[in-house]
Amino acid sequence: MNQAHVDQLLEFLRFPSISTDPAGKADVAGCADWLVGKLRAAGLKAKEHATAGHPIVVARNEHRPGRNTVVIYGHYDVQPVEPLAEWESAPFEPVIRNEVVFARGSTDNKGQILAHILGVAETLRAKGDLPVNLIFLIEGEEEIGSKQLEPFLAAHKDELKCDVIAVSDTGMVAKGVPTFTYGLRGVAAVELRVHGPAIDLHSGIYGGAVMNPALAVARLLATLHDAKGCVQVPGFYDEVQPLHDWERAAWQELPYGEKEILENTGVPQLFGEAGFTPLEQTWARPTAEVNGIGGGFQGEGSKTVIPREAFAKLTFRLVPNQRPAETIEKVRAYLESQCPPGVRIEVRAGHGGEPYLTDPQSAQGHAAQRALQRAFPGQKLALIREGGSIPIINTFKRILGADTLLLGLALPDCRAHAPNENFRVQESFVMARRAYCALLNRMGETA
Amino acid sequence: MNQAHVDQLLEFLRFPSISTDPAGKADVAGCADWLVGKLRAAGLKAKEHATAGHPIVVARNEHRPGRNTVVIYGHYDVQPVEPLAEWESAPFEPVIRNEVVFARGSTDNKGQILAHILGVAETLRAKGDLPVNLIFLIEGEEEIGSKQLEPFLAAHKDELKCDVIAVSDTGMVAKGVPTFTYGLRGVAAVELRVHGPAIDLHSGIYGGAVMNPALAVARLLATLHDAKGCVQVPGFYDEVQPLHDWERAAWQELPYGEKEILENTGVPQLFGEAGFTPLEQTWARPTAEVNGIGGGFQGEGSKTVIPREAFAKLTFRLVPNQRPAETIEKVRAYLESQCPPGVRIEVRAGHGGEPYLTDPQSAQGHAAQRALQRAFPGQKLALIREGGSIPIINTFKRILGADTLLLGLALPDCRAHAPNENFRVQESFVMARRAYCALLNRMGETA
Repeated sequence: MNQAHVDQLLEFLRFPSISTDPAGKADVAGCADWLVGKLRAAGLKAKEHATAGHPIVVARNEHRPGRNTVVIYGHYDVQPVEPLAEWESAPFEPVIRNEVVFARGSTDNKGQILAHILGVAETLRAKGDLPVNLIFLIEGEEEIGSKQLEPFLAAHKDELKCDVIAVSDTGMVAKGVPTFTYGLRGVAAVELRVHGPAIDLHSGIYGGAVMNPALAVARLLATLHDAKGCVQVPGFYDEVQPLHDWERAAWQELPYGEKEILENTGVPQLFGEAGFTPLEQTWARPTAEVNGIGGGFQGEGSKTVIPREAFAKLTFRLVPNQRPAETIEKVRAYLESQCPPGVRIEVRAGHGGEPYLTDPQSAQGHAAQRALQRAFPGQKLALIREGGSIPIINTFKRILGADTLLLGLALPDCRAHAPNENFRVQESFVMARRAYCALLNRMGETA
Repeated sequence: MNQAHVDQLLEFLRFPSISTDPAGKADVAGCADWLVGKLRAAGLKAKEHATAGHPIVVARNEHRPGRNTVVIYGHYDVQPVEPLAEWESAPFEPVIRNEVVFARGSTDNKGQILAHILGVAETLRAKGDLPVNLIFLIEGEEEIGSKQLEPFLAAHKDELKCDVIAVSDTGMVAKGVPTFTYGLRGVAAVELRVHGPAIDLHSGIYGGAVMNPALAVARLLATLHDAKGCVQVPGFYDEVQPLHDWERAAWQELPYGEKEILENTGVPQLFGEAGFTPLEQTWARPTAEVNGIGGGFQGEGSKTVIPREAFAKLTFRLVPNQRPAETIEKVRAYLESQCPPGVRIEVRAGHGGEPYLTDPQSAQGHAAQRALQRAFPGQKLALIREGGSIPIINTFKRILGADTLLLGLALPDCRAHAPNENFRVQESFVMARRAYCALLNRMGETA
């Protein structure tokens, strides 16, 4: 363990770079500035590009003809920290307990992207050059849908021309198991708001004669699924590609499944769409999920009101060939058709990202698998999909014309997006730096 | 309008005496101190009694044999103020706009109880005595279930012995219409908490394989009613007394009904239990109401989590002969029977209060109606029930053996419990002081 590396990680983690919070704009900008400094110190030419949202950081070595050009994509923004009370230490005051660093963003994505940067810095220091033409592309809006990245890619298409994109924002199925991720789910976000009375009403005086918006929002959410866990929005599954037999069989063999999911989540039992295993449910089947619900009195004790409004924040995870905009329209039509009497509903479309699926038997796929295998010698490689979304991958393909390799090293118990997010210093951070060095060399060889 | 009276009302309203908020204890105590000062200035012997919760204030004139003893009950605590953003002026910085004072507690109950005190002060100043033996009993926990009042009544039973209790915490059906309230609904509060994963989960990684607690709480709430607005909790209606024909007929004639409820609430249409009018639904039928719902991400933007827990704060309004404890047990059993797989539910019993119903044709009832008629000469008297709850009335009957007369002067648009609660300076505050003087004299005559 290199203490200077760890210190830099802790510095990076101290920025509360929460992209969704308008009040955090200066913190996000400070984090971008810091990153530019690190990239320059590594020996790269780095620049911060202002956008209508948070800045995008780009850095490159000296490019030379005849070498593969690799874009390493990552993000320096992080998820919100609520519920704050459940953190054992403050989310932006990183602490190391038992060789594990705890902080928001430690795994997702600061620890992984910094491991890349340190790997590059080390190679440049040791050899004076890299085996590839490298471009770091690090944005500040991944957690809120990468809105600024698409116009940026379009505007800087020529400078960003590359052979392949490497993204380290996914995970390993288990510690030490080389994992090639060939698919991700997409996402479509919707905010449902139910409006009732003009003001909060006394529930004694008016209760019984008016529809309660908090009850109405509950009834609407209750119509999303049937008893078997299937989403009831008409047409929701129309474009869903069935699972291949080979992947269902391969996933049965993985050292990750129901037992590990039970352990990691702490739920009393799993529940999901009938007819599918937990891995199939989370990796290859779409969902309708409530991320937040609220309305009426939230404090201690009681307050006898009928709230004037209530809301639910929903996201739908999508699989090939579902599309975010079409899904949102189906959801909107369905919720409107189910609206209880006496209230008015509003369905606001949020961010969306398309699902991603690549053929693991392609040339690029084989190259990545060989590189991974070299970084983890003697371990059986896992071929997986993941349930999360990195919507920008499809944008890369569309605008830059390049495929993406998912080379993440997050561990199943890293608590990404949750309280007490963590990253293992030795087994993840140090290991990632080494593995990324190996991958960079491999990518140089495949030119 | 007496400016000194109005100034005292504004002073009273500046105390943020929110009883449900543990952080507000000092403000509630300050309000009780202020009240004792006012009662002493009126010429009464006043004392503040410490309790395990907020203080109870008691004041009396010099009692003499052969006179009726009247307890005037009220409360100096108020409801919480959320949602704060919807107040046009700060809830504890009272302002007068168009002869209406806006502040939390203005109608419920500070304005009405202060009108009583000022009426008594005026009578004592003018005549040197009152026509009755008077006891003011003013508590600080009415909005949270009057938990301390019952042991207090039991401990001070002899000092509080009385012929009748007057409570001014109800309303008039319309401005200028003398209104005798002969029934109130009871209440039973329940907090439902749904526990799922040990931590908030990434909804991409785990979504599809675990039950979402926010969705589970929604499903549970959706089972509370059938499509016709009937509560589906087994046995819920077993003890419900049917409406009398005479009251259904009388309520049809009132200058208050669907039109006024639509105006006061601003809902697009009314909705309630099939087969009953809006007045019947709110005055004489029980309800299941969601006062607050919450779980997961509440902020701006989005956060893709499966929340570890979610909650709903429920109150059930009860009618004779439903009982709070029995109702809560029925609700608990029902919710437990409906619990979705993969989550654990917790049903916490909250405060309860029994419904109240008196015969308007009793001697006390006739006396009150005559007094009201005298205060509003030439106006047709309205015989009504109300939908709210004053649980302490049944405790008065049980411990002190005395009946309660409901003599409130709140107006239908007073926004009790809601943002912009208000009290009319001339038509309510001044009028109330006069009416209460008349009622005190009438009670003296009926000795």
